[in-house]
Amino acid sequence: MRILVLNPNTSATMTAEIDAAARAAAAPETEIVTVQPSFGSVAIDSAAESYLSAVGVMDVVATQLAAGTFDADAVVLAGFGEHGKDALQEMLDVPVLDIAESAAHVAQLIGRRFSVVTTLARSIAPIEDRLLLAGLAAHCASVRACGLGTAEVDADPAAAVAAIVAEAERAVTLDGADVICLGCAGMAGVTAAITEKLGVPAVDGVAAAVGLAQMLVGLNLSTSKAGVYAAGPDNARTHWPLSQGLHT
Amino acid sequence: MRILVLNPNTSATMTAEIDAAARAAAAPETEIVTVQPSFGSVAIDSAAESYLSAVGVMDVVATQLAAGTFDADAVVLAGFGEHGKDALQEMLDVPVLDIAESAAHVAQLIGRRFSVVTTLARSIAPIEDRLLLAGLAAHCASVRACGLGTAEVDADPAAAVAAIVAEAERAVTLDGADVICLGCAGMAGVTAAITEKLGVPAVDGVAAAVGLAQMLVGLNLSTSKAGVYAAGPDNARTHWPLSQGLHT
Amino acid sequence: MRILVLNPNTSATMTAEIDAAARAAAAPETEIVTVQPSFGSVAIDSAAESYLSAVGVMDVVATQLAAGTFDADAVVLAGFGEHGKDALQEMLDVPVLDIAESAAHVAQLIGRRFSVVTTLARSIAPIEDRLLLAGLAAHCASVRACGLGTAEVDADPAAAVAAIVAEAERAVTLDGADVICLGCAGMAGVTAAITEKLGVPAVDGVAAAVGLAQMLVGLNLSTSKAGVYAAGPDNARTHWPLSQGLHT
Amino acid sequence: MRILVLNPNTSATMTAEIDAAARAAAAPETEIVTVQPSFGSVAIDSAAESYLSAVGVMDVVATQLAAGTFDADAVVLAGFGEHGKDALQEMLDVPVLDIAESAAHVAQLIGRRFSVVTTLARSIAPIEDRLLLAGLAAHCASVRACGLGTAEVDADPAAAVAAIVAEAERAVTLDGADVICLGCAGMAGVTAAITEKLGVPAVDGVAAAVGLAQMLVGLNLSTSKAGVYAAGPDNARTHWPLSQGLHT
Amino acid sequence: MRILVLNPNTSATMTAEIDAAARAAAAPETEIVTVQPSFGSVAIDSAAESYLSAVGVMDVVATQLAAGTFDADAVVLAGFGEHGKDALQEMLDVPVLDIAESAAHVAQLIGRRFSVVTTLARSIAPIEDRLLLAGLAAHCASVRACGLGTAEVDADPAAAVAAIVAEAERAVTLDGADVICLGCAGMAGVTAAITEKLGVPAVDGVAAAVGLAQMLVGLNLSTSKAGVYAAGPDNARTHWPLSQGLHT
Amino acid sequence: MRILVLNPNTSATMTAEIDAAARAAAAPETEIVTVQPSFGSVAIDSAAESYLSAVGVMDVVATQLAAGTFDADAVVLAGFGEHGKDALQEMLDVPVLDIAESAAHVAQLIGRRFSVVTTLARSIAPIEDRLLLAGLAAHCASVRACGLGTAEVDADPAAAVAAIVAEAERAVTLDGADVICLGCAGMAGVTAAITEKLGVPAVDGVAAAVGLAQMLVGLNLSTSKAGVYAAGPDNARTHWPLSQGLHT
Repeated sequence: MRILVLNPNTSATMTAEIDAAARAAAAPETEIVTVQPSFGSVAIDSAAESYLSAVGVMDVVATQLAAGTFDADAVVLAGFGEHGKDALQEMLDVPVLDIAESAAHVAQLIGRRFSVVTTLARSIAPIEDRLLLAGLAAHCASVRACGLGTAEVDADPAAAVAAIVAEAERAVTLDGADVICLGCAGMAGVTAAITEKLGVPAVDGVAAAVGLAQMLVGLNLSTSKAGVYAAGPDNARTHWPLSQGLHT
Repeated sequence: MRILVLNPNTSATMTAEIDAAARAAAAPETEIVTVQPSFGSVAIDSAAESYLSAVGVMDVVATQLAAGTFDADAVVLAGFGEHGKDALQEMLDVPVLDIAESAAHVAQLIGRRFSVVTTLARSIAPIEDRLLLAGLAAHCASVRACGLGTAEVDADPAAAVAAIVAEAERAVTLDGADVICLGCAGMAGVTAAITEKLGVPAVDGVAAAVGLAQMLVGLNLSTSKAGVYAAGPDNARTHWPLSQGLHT
Repeated sequence: MRILVLNPNTSATMTAEIDAAARAAAAPETEIVTVQPSFGSVAIDSAAESYLSAVGVMDVVATQLAAGTFDADAVVLAGFGEHGKDALQEMLDVPVLDIAESAAHVAQLIGRRFSVVTTLARSIAPIEDRLLLAGLAAHCASVRACGLGTAEVDADPAAAVAAIVAEAERAVTLDGADVICLGCAGMAGVTAAITEKLGVPAVDGVAAAVGLAQMLVGLNLSTSKAGVYAAGPDNARTHWPLSQGLHT
Repeated sequence: MRILVLNPNTSATMTAEIDAAARAAAAPETEIVTVQPSFGSVAIDSAAESYLSAVGVMDVVATQLAAGTFDADAVVLAGFGEHGKDALQEMLDVPVLDIAESAAHVAQLIGRRFSVVTTLARSIAPIEDRLLLAGLAAHCASVRACGLGTAEVDADPAAAVAAIVAEAERAVTLDGADVICLGCAGMAGVTAAITEKLGVPAVDGVAAAVGLAQMLVGLNLSTSKAGVYAAGPDNARTHWPLSQGLHT
Repeated sequence: MRILVLNPNTSATMTAEIDAAARAAAAPETEIVTVQPSFGSVAIDSAAESYLSAVGVMDVVATQLAAGTFDADAVVLAGFGEHGKDALQEMLDVPVLDIAESAAHVAQLIGRRFSVVTTLARSIAPIEDRLLLAGLAAHCASVRACGLGTAEVDADPAAAVAAIVAEAERAVTLDGADVICLGCAGMAGVTAAITEKLGVPAVDGVAAAVGLAQMLVGLNLSTSKAGVYAAGPDNARTHWPLSQGLHT
Repeated sequence: MRILVLNPNTSATMTAEIDAAARAAAAPETEIVTVQPSFGSVAIDSAAESYLSAVGVMDVVATQLAAGTFDADAVVLAGFGEHGKDALQEMLDVPVLDIAESAAHVAQLIGRRFSVVTTLARSIAPIEDRLLLAGLAAHCASVRACGLGTAEVDADPAAAVAAIVAEAERAVTLDGADVICLGCAGMAGVTAAITEKLGVPAVDGVAAAVGLAQMLVGLNLSTSKAGVYAAGPDNARTHWPLSQGLHT
């Protein structure tokens, strides 16, 4: 089985971290291929960057489809709250998993109420929106942010882990969560720290999505094409895929 | 990996059918053991029978725990809408999967709106309640019943399949479902018939639960003991497990 | 008029307390008969015990029905959040009242937002579930627990009353409740203490259920048999009623 | 016990019918006094008339309070969906029951889903609003209208009953109701006809409100004055009660 | 364009303040006429006074209609949470705007979550009800009160502004609001103070309603008469309009 | 006042139609400038095209901002259900209006329940999602599609109008709508036809958005920058704006 993991931002460091997380979660016989868009933003901290990243991952897939090189059995979109999953579901016949929804599904299987702990406060709203649209808001106790940005996390990873654990503790104590979803991709060691310190399960979205992708492929199930995820009409587009026409 | 599948009713025929469905869905290295309670009802068509079945499966697990013979890595409760999952989650440290919730989770991963098609109309309410409590009602387009009882299904399986497919078609056409969950356990061939006739994915709850159980075990995740699923206090009980005290 | 009050646990002390509360609330011409199951748990502090208690009260009623001794005009299930009401509604033609739902109905008639104050924190979730399924969650401001278990309540009743009053005060001050429902059965003096200290009405579930039972009998209304509470099909059961087959 | 029943319209015929319905439902020892406003509309078929009727019943009560003649133990506002209950709850220390909410509470006690059947289609919206604000919408299957106005009901009562029964049948068959609430006051014989023809319980709001009023008085419970139903500040008003200043 | 602004209370001071607020918001070519009822209460701090005010503004409009002097292009009901808008919509063919709903609509256009800050705590419930019925509750973060009554606001306006700003700050900090709606009419300078101190937009309901009224008139749109706002049947009424029959 | 209207697709015909609709709705003193992206799709009939269009309109605005040529007082995004409004709100200090939300706001001001009638069935889901996220779903009676695509509408506009009117009639009759929102941009004559044939107000999103934009500018209100619409951090991006780097 081959899973294509799409990092929606253009940070090679992040791509490597996501790739490592996916490999750690995958079964031995599963092949993981992690890629990033050829244009976009090094981090996704706004709606504008989220849309740009959606087009970026669409561009990756469209380019592979056009070249006849797409050969994954499932796709994981490794953006926590970022846009684009539904577009990929339209474009592809294989299952597409989003790490925010995947984490929430897994959390509901092992607890009564889950909280999401993310980095920046401005990521709270898009995560809430993602869960609401996915029909996964009813058991969400809260979406919380520890307030650290990408630069700060990179500068002092241990302090970042501590900040996320502290916020997770508030989710458990104040909001009644009994499971924590890690609301960002690629941070090693956080889920283990949460479980060790707080005694609650912690779900990493990349791991959850890889696990669910393997499950769907194992059950021979994929996206329904009888509804909104059917391929769209063949409308004329200009400059598509965009990366074909960009000056290098 | 070893999965204990609990048929909540006392029908050996149904136990065999569920066992076959679980084996068909399981990975080669997964061992499936399917059992049924030592008391209860041959079919579960009422709230009274649902509670009786919950105590029946609790009794199976309590007996194994008391005897030191419980050795499963995950448990699947193979009743679609029946009670008992939360009790098993309290009693055990391994993941417990319910086939109604499992089917709904899988359906949401591959479509926008799912419908459940069950046999008797009186099963609609408990399934709706199960989905509501599990936080999975938002994307449920409808719960429908084809109106056939266990006896009729047994007497003419082909007619039963046709009736379920016909009801599934109404779910797609009238309610906007793009995925169908089969709302009962152990009917061979129905999901294939739905997909073939209607072109929509159909999810069997036993298969979904086995797949999700394997996923959770693979990710090393289990029920949170930090909340409502913590083991209860050691209250004095009489006649427990009940099967120990029953005249044979 | 004769009301059968079912204590779902096996504590004779609790049965006596519930009986006293029911008699205090009943009209002079109403006869109260309070009974407990012949098997189960002395207190109900888990989902497992809740299911066991549901089968216990079903067993009481089934035994009376089989013996032709059931002669109540209404039944009160005196478990706050415990399972079983719907099963009794299926089995009987007379009205069945649950003390959690009854308290909530009465609270809504006399206030805008009610809170439930119970003993153990692990009872919060089943009470929330009961209210949600009963369609009574919209005006529930909160379900709170004072943190004392049965043993502590028995050891120092006055301290328990003080703890519940203190939690009720938080419900009024922090959550905006203007009515308090007492979320457990059989504690004398608590409702009076709440009203005296906080100036808000306090509703005891046993009293509410007895009052509503008398109301329904007076209006000649009983459970609809046209829907989900119709008697179930005559499925074969083993060892039913269970108490018949238990070694004494 | 003395219950003051307030017909919100100015039709003496309707007042007599409501009075008869209240007396039929009341316990022998309960005294029923039914009155109507001294100004307003002979029927209430608009929001404007509903507000006018609210002020009309407030005027009745204010006049009694000013004269020192108010001596009821409970008040029933006999308008199905009409405004004014909260104002009366502010003005009075005794329980105030609204017939729409009362019918819905009673319906939920005896079934899973109720429908309301009223006369004119333009009454549907205010009834839906009333149930939503009262937190009683979750188990409401539908609010339906048979389309007959007051004049038509008066001209051919038997045809009106038949039309309401026919609409109730649609509520049961199409909407899944297992209890019907009669969405207007004062029509004799309708609930019996519904139950006889359809086999479902039918709840008359006046009877339900009288029963619940007796229940609250019996339990010594009344409106909470700790929240929104506290008496308002003593603002200066002109011409109040209005009836004092109206030319006769 | 001519807009009739209805102050629902009988305070001439408040009428003047509302008139000033409306004029400040209106386009140069818009004529503002602000009036108050001929009976009612000088302030509206209860459900009873809210119903009385609804009949008061209905009386103003009915009197103008009867006299043939009604000539407004739109009507603004300047009560924040008060009743009566739907009645005016029935009575009139021109658009009718309510200042609570108008503020909420405008707030949603410029932010993600809005809070309402009003004066007395007892106004919170009717404002919540108004927003719920109007379908505008989903993005309401909170309704808060600063606790000052009309007299206190009049006695020390600067202190009142400070108290409202302080409460608005809690809405932003604790509830996550990014827009504040001023939950009362006629206080000059509050919106500017909120925006200056907190850096969030503040919406005055009178201004919002005037703006939306101008927008609807400009688009040639008015209340739908195809549904619940159709004129009611011609029921006989006594003493209507009430002001005609009141002794002066 | 100057309003920048953004057609999210690349059809010059559609841009002209939207421009005409905006001009027809605008006040005489308002200047309308309508533009389209420099890349994307001629019609937007999928999630993929919706994301592409969001980046397209972002690109237009970013290019103007970079060149210092952005000088609008408000922006209208003329895609009914398309993505991008929140990104524009982040990027700009002036108000940004979406035609789907604008139509829904205006519809709620003039009726009780609105329906949206769009062209293709596959547009239903994104419109439902847009309304849900905007907190405008509670009063939406239905979103319906007449089934005609862009080509068919262009080939026979009169037939398209008739098909939309027929679908609007079903919304009124079957779903209880009393206002219709036209769920696509740029079709002349449809709203007039709906109102003429069905007697209900019909709201065109472009007109509504222009009206609301003028209202906000008139009230000197704009997007709150205190919450999620604050400008994002200055993350490094490649190839942005994309149109700068595209081969022509």
